[in-house]
Amino acid sequence: MIRHTALFKWTTEATDEQKAAVAAELASLPPIVPSIRGFVLGADVGVATGNFDFAVTADFDDEAGFFAYRDDPAHRDIISRTITPIMAQRVAVQFRF
Amino acid sequence: MIRHTALFKWTTEATDEQKAAVAAELASLPPIVPSIRGFVLGADVGVATGNFDFAVTADFDDEAGFFAYRDDPAHRDIISRTITPIMAQRVAVQFRF
Repeated sequence: MIRHTALFKWTTEATDEQKAAVAAELASLPPIVPSIRGFVLGADVGVATGNFDFAVTADFDDEAGFFAYRDDPAHRDIISRTITPIMAQRVAVQFRF
Repeated sequence: MIRHTALFKWTTEATDEQKAAVAAELASLPPIVPSIRGFVLGADVGVATGNFDFAVTADFDDEAGFFAYRDDPAHRDIISRTITPIMAQRVAVQFRF
């Protein structure tokens, strides 16, 4: 299995509505991207200083499954409409488990 | 549930042996930290540019479970002996799911 982990820091101008839209739109992906085996996301709960603001963890059988998710048109559309406009920083790792 | 996600970038001087020690030592924690419900970690597989080098995802029932892991003496010992000496950057998010 491959776990994709992506952590995001939002811009200071990002509104609560914009942040909520990212989570809501991404949550629509599992039913339409067949390669997704696990999909968990959420906003930072605020118990540690210096954290980023939002995380997505997505599990796949293999790298091909991750690529199918990464390149899915619905996913790319969500990224360009909801994530890119409020993204200050993004850090990711894909690892085998 | 709370998922803790921590992504690490190692220093350019970090050796393969040092990187492997981080994974091996952290993998010893689930049997000795009772609050851990899920624990998955690994080195970046290298399919995306700009990624960090290593990730840990750990699941807990609640924030208290995360704090117990964060503050566990065995965990702090692993951090100071194996992670801190080779860490260039660390980004984390804890989120509810």
